[in-house]
Amino acid sequence: MTHQDTIVALATPAGAGAISIIRVSGNNAITIVAPLFKSKKNKNLEKQPSHTLHLGNIVDGKHILDEVLVSIFHGPKSYTGENTIEISCHGSSYIQQEIIQLLIRNGCRAAQAGEFTLRAFLNGKMDLSQAEAVADLISSENSASHQIAMQQMRGGFSNEIKFLRQELLNFASLIELELDFAEEDVEFANRDAFQTLITKIQTVLKRLIDSFAIGNVLKKGLPIAIVGEPNVGKSTLLNALLNEERAIVSEIAGTTRDTIEDEISIGGIGFRFIDTAGIRETKDVIESLGIKKTYEKIGQAEIAMLLLDAEEVIKSSTAFLKEMEKIKSRFPEKPLLVVANKIDKLNASQIATLNAQIPNLHLLSAKKKEGVTQLKEKLLSFINTGALRNNNTIVTNSRHYNALLKALEEINKVQEGLNKNLTGDLLAIDIRQALYHFGEITGEITNDDVLGNIFANFCIGK
Amino acid sequence: MTHQDTIVALATPAGAGAISIIRVSGNNAITIVAPLFKSKKNKNLEKQPSHTLHLGNIVDGKHILDEVLVSIFHGPKSYTGENTIEISCHGSSYIQQEIIQLLIRNGCRAAQAGEFTLRAFLNGKMDLSQAEAVADLISSENSASHQIAMQQMRGGFSNEIKFLRQELLNFASLIELELDFAEEDVEFANRDAFQTLITKIQTVLKRLIDSFAIGNVLKKGLPIAIVGEPNVGKSTLLNALLNEERAIVSEIAGTTRDTIEDEISIGGIGFRFIDTAGIRETKDVIESLGIKKTYEKIGQAEIAMLLLDAEEVIKSSTAFLKEMEKIKSRFPEKPLLVVANKIDKLNASQIATLNAQIPNLHLLSAKKKEGVTQLKEKLLSFINTGALRNNNTIVTNSRHYNALLKALEEINKVQEGLNKNLTGDLLAIDIRQALYHFGEITGEITNDDVLGNIFANFCIGK
Repeated sequence: MTHQDTIVALATPAGAGAISIIRVSGNNAITIVAPLFKSKKNKNLEKQPSHTLHLGNIVDGKHILDEVLVSIFHGPKSYTGENTIEISCHGSSYIQQEIIQLLIRNGCRAAQAGEFTLRAFLNGKMDLSQAEAVADLISSENSASHQIAMQQMRGGFSNEIKFLRQELLNFASLIELELDFAEEDVEFANRDAFQTLITKIQTVLKRLIDSFAIGNVLKKGLPIAIVGEPNVGKSTLLNALLNEERAIVSEIAGTTRDTIEDEISIGGIGFRFIDTAGIRETKDVIESLGIKKTYEKIGQAEIAMLLLDAEEVIKSSTAFLKEMEKIKSRFPEKPLLVVANKIDKLNASQIATLNAQIPNLHLLSAKKKEGVTQLKEKLLSFINTGALRNNNTIVTNSRHYNALLKALEEINKVQEGLNKNLTGDLLAIDIRQALYHFGEITGEITNDDVLGNIFANFCIGK
Repeated sequence: MTHQDTIVALATPAGAGAISIIRVSGNNAITIVAPLFKSKKNKNLEKQPSHTLHLGNIVDGKHILDEVLVSIFHGPKSYTGENTIEISCHGSSYIQQEIIQLLIRNGCRAAQAGEFTLRAFLNGKMDLSQAEAVADLISSENSASHQIAMQQMRGGFSNEIKFLRQELLNFASLIELELDFAEEDVEFANRDAFQTLITKIQTVLKRLIDSFAIGNVLKKGLPIAIVGEPNVGKSTLLNALLNEERAIVSEIAGTTRDTIEDEISIGGIGFRFIDTAGIRETKDVIESLGIKKTYEKIGQAEIAMLLLDAEEVIKSSTAFLKEMEKIKSRFPEKPLLVVANKIDKLNASQIATLNAQIPNLHLLSAKKKEGVTQLKEKLLSFINTGALRNNNTIVTNSRHYNALLKALEEINKVQEGLNKNLTGDLLAIDIRQALYHFGEITGEITNDDVLGNIFANFCIGK
């Protein structure tokens, strides 16, 4: 990638619609577009002020391609920091392609995925963690993940990291200064103040690292495996939770062979429900594979939900125990939520019996949609949303998480060095390493491979 | 629909992308958006000039929904002619929905399909045929249909109709004036000049009506049925023409049971290829249904293309005649293009024999892609693109076509009246009818049902 040329891409989703936007960015953006645009008022684009809109035609010689609205942004007052033109054209795939091809013939290059945001980063319009938040923001599907991405995009996370990095850098400079005066045995860096800073950094890093567990859940949704014997109504419950007909529901035991994943938002938090095949003994090869997959999915889920048929439990109150024990023995640490379905088929005394027999049993009827809302509330209680409510910085990105882990490791080495009264030259090495990992997050220290990796996950046009 | 309220809709295609645009139009567009937008520079949207762009946040109370770019258009200098705001936000479905819901809570109404363009029409920003061209433009998929839609959107067609209507209206007024002076037996409208105008109108109407045949083809693509015995390589030819693996190709005769339609653009013109099952005698029920469908498809197509296996023709030079006769006897008027495939399996003398036996036979190898380009050229020659090249007005809309037919009918009645020296009062009735049909096209005369019909076919947001 060279960053001297002018790039073009469709910035709106592909397909037909009322309007599409073609984005052009680079030093020559305005000079390339100007001769291809005939303003309704004979205005020369090159002489128009930044942040103005102009109606006219995109022309290829004498041939009019489309009537468009052109937005002008003069660098550095643009998304990329470069001269930028946004062409708002009619939303036809044909027109989009014709205009993009015209621009390419006239000196633009087709942009790669994320290249506009990459340029924004390279031109200092945002740091790396803010750039990453742009992609998160676009893919956010619920209130919580949106809120975290917005906070990160607006620099909440970066500011915290940058502040710590700056304080650490000040001490590093003082300690390194001591090295120049090594023979004189002076201490420019006050060791008590430094210990206070190290403790503070450790506390913040630990908080950020701990936030990743909830951050990851908020970003990706909390995975819940719904497990149970065939025909207990897993697909029906999934449908009731999703409020739509998503899974194939049938009376034949063993209908659901593939696992079905879907996400719903409860109280702004995403929950990924994984509907699995049951775990009864079977001779059917395909179903055996399904059972193996069920165990795999429970392993990946944060919560296992065992779904029982209330009628069956009444008939044989010990049968369900076998099921529970199977899961508990395999996954002793995993929270297990036991739910009895089909309570619409029971009378009041049977329900009382059920409640007496099994403590903490959640009763519901997926078919009648009774007890489903209460189940949603119970699921929500599994997530500690305190950090979210308090607007704390939450780490959601595994790249940041790894950098934070490494930074903490180095800071702990510095702590150890302080405890052992190590000399400044030795302390300085570990401090530099910690600074390096802080810099990785915000992009002050980076390399082309990392950048390539990050921006390849963006969509074209962003 | 009321046109006093302020409407909102997503104007870009649904789905994730870099940017989405939410369009707000109506008297209160700016006053509704202003308090929900916090400009980076503390600017008040209500005080900003038209055609300017502003960076800021969309806020719901203290909660920031997104960082957006807002475009302002003061009516009547906007698409709809009303005050308009376009909010360019991040392309996430979640954000789109949140912003649209926020706007609805603050006094906007969700726009109906085509409602922005309907308002543009009602506010005199475009006439009805221009509004219809907007939908055509968005759905245009090749150069020809795009060119026609652009011409119509820019008023080419309307201007021609309006000019004729105005001239006719002048004469109508003069003739109606004569009625007021009936007792004095004066002629304000010169009958010779009137005859000249009528002749001119007849000529133009006939030209426009005739253009519909080509216009319809250019808009919808020319349908071509590919017919032939099983295993002659219809699907392979379709693939070669489409340059992609679209149909299922196999060695087993009778693979293609469903008809497959696809469109390609040759020289800017759309061709719709309809791959059909063969027409050999068969006892297989499903294949018999395929043969019935083949005949149906030939009936609907403009051109039938009979595809033969060159090797088979060599073996039995009369076999192919049976095929040709079957089609010719059923569809005597339909152009039939006979093509021999698999010539890669023949030697030079066999090819010479083939050419001698069957005049006008097109030889090709779909597999080796030999003769495919020549076939495309041959297909192109079926379309008279003169009108398109000469930039003549071409009618593509069946509503316009019907109105033109009716207008011509009335004009012919006027002609008849002139021939019979009918009095002005009788002439005036037919003139008024012709004027009515002209007005239907441009929307000067219309009713809510017609408008509802036209705009219901638009996408939401346009």
